[in-house]
Amino acid sequence: MIPSRKEVIDAYYRVQPYVHNTPVLKSSYLNSLSGTEVYFKCENFQKMGAFKMRGAINAILQLSEAQKEAGVVTHSSGNFAQAVSLAAQKVGVKAHIVMPSNAPSVKQEAVKGYGGLITISEPTLAAREAAAATIEKETGATFLHPSNNKEVILGNSTAAYELLHSHPEIEIILTPVGGGGLVAGTALAAHYIGNNCKVVGGEPFAVDDAYRSLQSGKIEINETTNTVADGLRTNLGAINFPIIKELVSEIIRVEEEEIIAAMRLIWERMKIIIEPSCAVPFAAVLKEKQKFKHKKIGIILSGGNVDVKKLPF
Amino acid sequence: MIPSRKEVIDAYYRVQPYVHNTPVLKSSYLNSLSGTEVYFKCENFQKMGAFKMRGAINAILQLSEAQKEAGVVTHSSGNFAQAVSLAAQKVGVKAHIVMPSNAPSVKQEAVKGYGGLITISEPTLAAREAAAATIEKETGATFLHPSNNKEVILGNSTAAYELLHSHPEIEIILTPVGGGGLVAGTALAAHYIGNNCKVVGGEPFAVDDAYRSLQSGKIEINETTNTVADGLRTNLGAINFPIIKELVSEIIRVEEEEIIAAMRLIWERMKIIIEPSCAVPFAAVLKEKQKFKHKKIGIILSGGNVDVKKLPF
Repeated sequence: MIPSRKEVIDAYYRVQPYVHNTPVLKSSYLNSLSGTEVYFKCENFQKMGAFKMRGAINAILQLSEAQKEAGVVTHSSGNFAQAVSLAAQKVGVKAHIVMPSNAPSVKQEAVKGYGGLITISEPTLAAREAAAATIEKETGATFLHPSNNKEVILGNSTAAYELLHSHPEIEIILTPVGGGGLVAGTALAAHYIGNNCKVVGGEPFAVDDAYRSLQSGKIEINETTNTVADGLRTNLGAINFPIIKELVSEIIRVEEEEIIAAMRLIWERMKIIIEPSCAVPFAAVLKEKQKFKHKKIGIILSGGNVDVKKLPF
Repeated sequence: MIPSRKEVIDAYYRVQPYVHNTPVLKSSYLNSLSGTEVYFKCENFQKMGAFKMRGAINAILQLSEAQKEAGVVTHSSGNFAQAVSLAAQKVGVKAHIVMPSNAPSVKQEAVKGYGGLITISEPTLAAREAAAATIEKETGATFLHPSNNKEVILGNSTAAYELLHSHPEIEIILTPVGGGGLVAGTALAAHYIGNNCKVVGGEPFAVDDAYRSLQSGKIEINETTNTVADGLRTNLGAINFPIIKELVSEIIRVEEEEIIAAMRLIWERMKIIIEPSCAVPFAAVLKEKQKFKHKKIGIILSGGNVDVKKLPF
């Protein structure tokens, strides 16, 4: 069930030419505030503004020539739509993107800008899945899931791989947990590349499906999705959950106001733009200071795609 | 009148242990939008969030032991107040900061956080100058001007020095022009360290004193200060004007909406936080695309201290 060390290393070399080796930033103020030493891996500076580029490009590069010829399809209104569009464009593959009719026009424009072919569906999950299935059937395109896909997970692992390669002293890496693709990939990299490096997930209380899944041992569902961290509303999947169960130490849950406060601290002190979901791991560090005291901590800053006209502070 | 090559190089080695060698970022999107290749020197990531740290620390390090013992004084409600406080703290010197009574409490807190000793004055220039003069007289503290001081200018030159050291291929460097300390320092670095590197200033039409000063050959004053670029409202001084006259090629003026649009582009596309003043040079590049076409351009991103609750977009 767990991808091999070789698969992790191969993914790193495969995606390297297509992604930025994003900078690692530190802030002496945030270190002293948290009582830790935090290495922020800035995937908000990644191409299209989020780590999702890594998973998308790895999955597309792993297609056969015939599959590449037929194109790819996904449904998303968020970062994965842009990631698949841009990754497909880089290697000359057609990308069909099903977007709900209520997706903001700025997101539709971004997808078009990266060459994605948009199909508008009714704004329900069933309608989106049906539209994607129709495209799959009619064009032979390969469906790419944003988080529950082994090659996407392996692509995501390359952010932590880069971080541990340049900073092998890191003892714990934290990521946000949404669909589980980032935390699973990070756990693989830490397991194979780190020096006894643990992985901890951060999750909003409002959508704590991953926390409950680790408690119950089976995939739990969110009843509500009422969180400012709009990238973390989805549930784990059958491919990433076994990796998470095996290799993730713990999920720490945080309140909405803790997420917003952590986001504002990073904006104001580090002068970088991160989206609310991206602030969740640092909120977890501030919440559990004793646990992380004096530790060297990596945080994957997952993305920076936020509407600057609609800030939560 | 013009500081020597040796003075510029000495300043670089003097301030190096006290400042960040800030990263240089590029954006393929902004390059294609502008038709140029822009190297953004991120002084918004500098200690206290602005290039002003460089001038402040250089000026303080150049004091005699007796002067250091007596402390320094300045009046400012902005970045220079924080810069002097932090720089003085780093070398164990007392910093007296005169702030107008209407300075936002968040700025007063920042100065206190860096150990600055605040004196509140009436919010007029005369009252601020009088309060500073009184402190100078009573304590023997040395007055530091934020832009019209040779050691401050030499300190400021170190940002462009670092940029040209790592990227000697740069053909033009742009900076915003307020009191003239940054553009003058940058011009010194380009003159002595660059490979025929020109320096161009960017200035809001609303406060185009530097543009008019270069036209008339004498220091002109702004009649109004109605610009979103609140760091650029001040006038040139007798120490920096001769350097600017001799070594700055041109001042390009931009409209308020061009500043706001450039600021938003940098926020959204580069995921970094810059203050409005800081967006002026990129606005100038977008305004005069033909002039900069295919050029390698350095832009000093001067600072990132902005109230995230009061954005101009």
